[in-house]
Amino acid sequence: MTGCVVLLTDFGTVDPYVGIMKGVITSINPSATIIDFTHSIKRHDIVQASFLLKKSFRFFPKEAVFVAVIDPGVGTSRQAISASADGYFFVGPDNGIFSHILDQAENKKIVRITNQKIMLTQISFTFHGRDVFAPAAAHLSSGLIGIEELGEVTDAYKKLSVPEPIIKENEIIGSVLFSDHFGNLITNIDEELLKNKKIKIIEAGSYKINEIKNTYGESPVGTISALIGSYGTLELAVNRGSASRLIGNSDKLFVTVKF
Amino acid sequence: MTGCVVLLTDFGTVDPYVGIMKGVITSINPSATIIDFTHSIKRHDIVQASFLLKKSFRFFPKEAVFVAVIDPGVGTSRQAISASADGYFFVGPDNGIFSHILDQAENKKIVRITNQKIMLTQISFTFHGRDVFAPAAAHLSSGLIGIEELGEVTDAYKKLSVPEPIIKENEIIGSVLFSDHFGNLITNIDEELLKNKKIKIIEAGSYKINEIKNTYGESPVGTISALIGSYGTLELAVNRGSASRLIGNSDKLFVTVKF
Amino acid sequence: MTGCVVLLTDFGTVDPYVGIMKGVITSINPSATIIDFTHSIKRHDIVQASFLLKKSFRFFPKEAVFVAVIDPGVGTSRQAISASADGYFFVGPDNGIFSHILDQAENKKIVRITNQKIMLTQISFTFHGRDVFAPAAAHLSSGLIGIEELGEVTDAYKKLSVPEPIIKENEIIGSVLFSDHFGNLITNIDEELLKNKKIKIIEAGSYKINEIKNTYGESPVGTISALIGSYGTLELAVNRGSASRLIGNSDKLFVTVKF
Repeated sequence: MTGCVVLLTDFGTVDPYVGIMKGVITSINPSATIIDFTHSIKRHDIVQASFLLKKSFRFFPKEAVFVAVIDPGVGTSRQAISASADGYFFVGPDNGIFSHILDQAENKKIVRITNQKIMLTQISFTFHGRDVFAPAAAHLSSGLIGIEELGEVTDAYKKLSVPEPIIKENEIIGSVLFSDHFGNLITNIDEELLKNKKIKIIEAGSYKINEIKNTYGESPVGTISALIGSYGTLELAVNRGSASRLIGNSDKLFVTVKF
Repeated sequence: MTGCVVLLTDFGTVDPYVGIMKGVITSINPSATIIDFTHSIKRHDIVQASFLLKKSFRFFPKEAVFVAVIDPGVGTSRQAISASADGYFFVGPDNGIFSHILDQAENKKIVRITNQKIMLTQISFTFHGRDVFAPAAAHLSSGLIGIEELGEVTDAYKKLSVPEPIIKENEIIGSVLFSDHFGNLITNIDEELLKNKKIKIIEAGSYKINEIKNTYGESPVGTISALIGSYGTLELAVNRGSASRLIGNSDKLFVTVKF
Repeated sequence: MTGCVVLLTDFGTVDPYVGIMKGVITSINPSATIIDFTHSIKRHDIVQASFLLKKSFRFFPKEAVFVAVIDPGVGTSRQAISASADGYFFVGPDNGIFSHILDQAENKKIVRITNQKIMLTQISFTFHGRDVFAPAAAHLSSGLIGIEELGEVTDAYKKLSVPEPIIKENEIIGSVLFSDHFGNLITNIDEELLKNKKIKIIEAGSYKINEIKNTYGESPVGTISALIGSYGTLELAVNRGSASRLIGNSDKLFVTVKF
């Protein structure tokens, strides 16, 4: 038994909830490598979690099991699902968090998690991360059981609606999805949308930017710049400063690229 | 050598103190699996740490070694202890942090850590987590030494006095122990105290709650509700909100359940 | 393959950047033990990172690979380096972060990382932690490649200038480098500088301290004291309080020890 389990939650790191999930995983698969993706997803923000996962899962080892617990409906009638997609595994509530990955996967299998033998003996109403998802992921990661053994195979999964950029002939209107630790503003405008196009101007609120730079350090200190960030989307940044602070309330800010 | 070491401190995650403890553990037992329980115990709050540990240690693998460093008396005359209890190991200062687990354990052995051979060569006055507890736990986790080799066996350990609920014929008066990341208020009223009882009303400050729900999502958004949380105690929560923020200063708030 | 990789960044823990680096490392060396040193270095603060690393790396297992990504110049012309020093390995930008360790190492080898075969196939301009440093460290940690295979051996590395204490006949004038989670103020005055000296007084701002204590608990609650902290330097602390809060803005505060 080896195997890699990757955890993504909105639990924060103050409480022992994540540590307890790791205890459950290690009890079932002692040789699992457990990696924290992040536990600071904004509470209940399935859209942000979905974006980060979609843009990053391929940097993890093949056969890694991603456990995503952003789960406002815990204990209600929402389903628990597991899926394999292009060689990776996913475990979590069926609330749309994996839908982008599943939509785009060439090979996939989806299973409704119902087999109580792979859960803890006592299932609480409030912490399925511990009682359902962690044990299911641990069993999967061990390689000793196949995904079909978690429950019933299905085709259905909840679709997530996310803010997509509006693409017109001479402009793209996207939006800021979130800001990162450095105050960089990450947009939903993929770099492919900008390829081979001559940019006239980028507008973000009252700021106007003339071109896309390669690096943060290229722009004068304190000024706003645009570049393709490490998620492969258009990003707004301030060299040695914070675009988030400069622009102010940047949540859902529109960003328009004109050609 | 394999083995699981679980770390619980009030060190926070900004400084490298926890990372350095892991360096020491890995130097002694390279194949140890190290799990962070939490490092955000409120400074010196032995009561909170003791509650969390007592309610959660059974979710970790048997033979796991828990290292708890909430240690206001570091470098003074307080003792260092290690204990085995019902198949788990505990290492830390003898300040009462393990006393609940030890009180209730069916099988236990307690050892005063005095063997300098299992400590680092240089013992600082200010960081026994690194110099004493991490190496002792690493040695224990490796399975190469028994707990008796850490020092002298003893029966004595410091008892912690914690706020217990007052149980009357028609009511239980408990209190809020702390609030979690979601603003849920965790009380010291165990679910067993409520079993088979018909609840008339739950009072928390000026708030009155009529019944215990199963899930966070069952109550109207924004309203306060009571439920049995994942620690197995009565919890106050606000669906998609924060009970802690709603009620205001909730520290040591009394919660009365009337039958 | 086994191996220990230690991560030190200013990425914070909110974003998945650190998790993604761990995904890359685990993809290359599935049996690597990955330890978080800290991810809360103040943004771009190479001096603080350098101090912490220098004072702590010997607590980690021999052959550990330290990856330090405090990298304001990412994507610009700054070089990427790797070094072995006294049995440990270091990987990161050549911005001076390792220069103290290299200056003092008895055995060292320095390599400019240029071999694209040990990097990810696509190198972004903004995240060399993921695309260059993580894969280089993973390869090193596996023991399957030697450090020379990362690029060209060199003697040159960027030197970091750090605030050194001024040493006079009857006094030492040092400064506070940073404050830790407990509000302890860590200075740049090494304990060796104080050995076998009779201290008359320690002055920090308007505070005067008469002697060096051994432990935090030795001083009256709430009063400021001086002691040798776990980094082996003079530290200012307040028993059950915060020296940082007591003294106020302590950044770059001068601390004078008079003999």
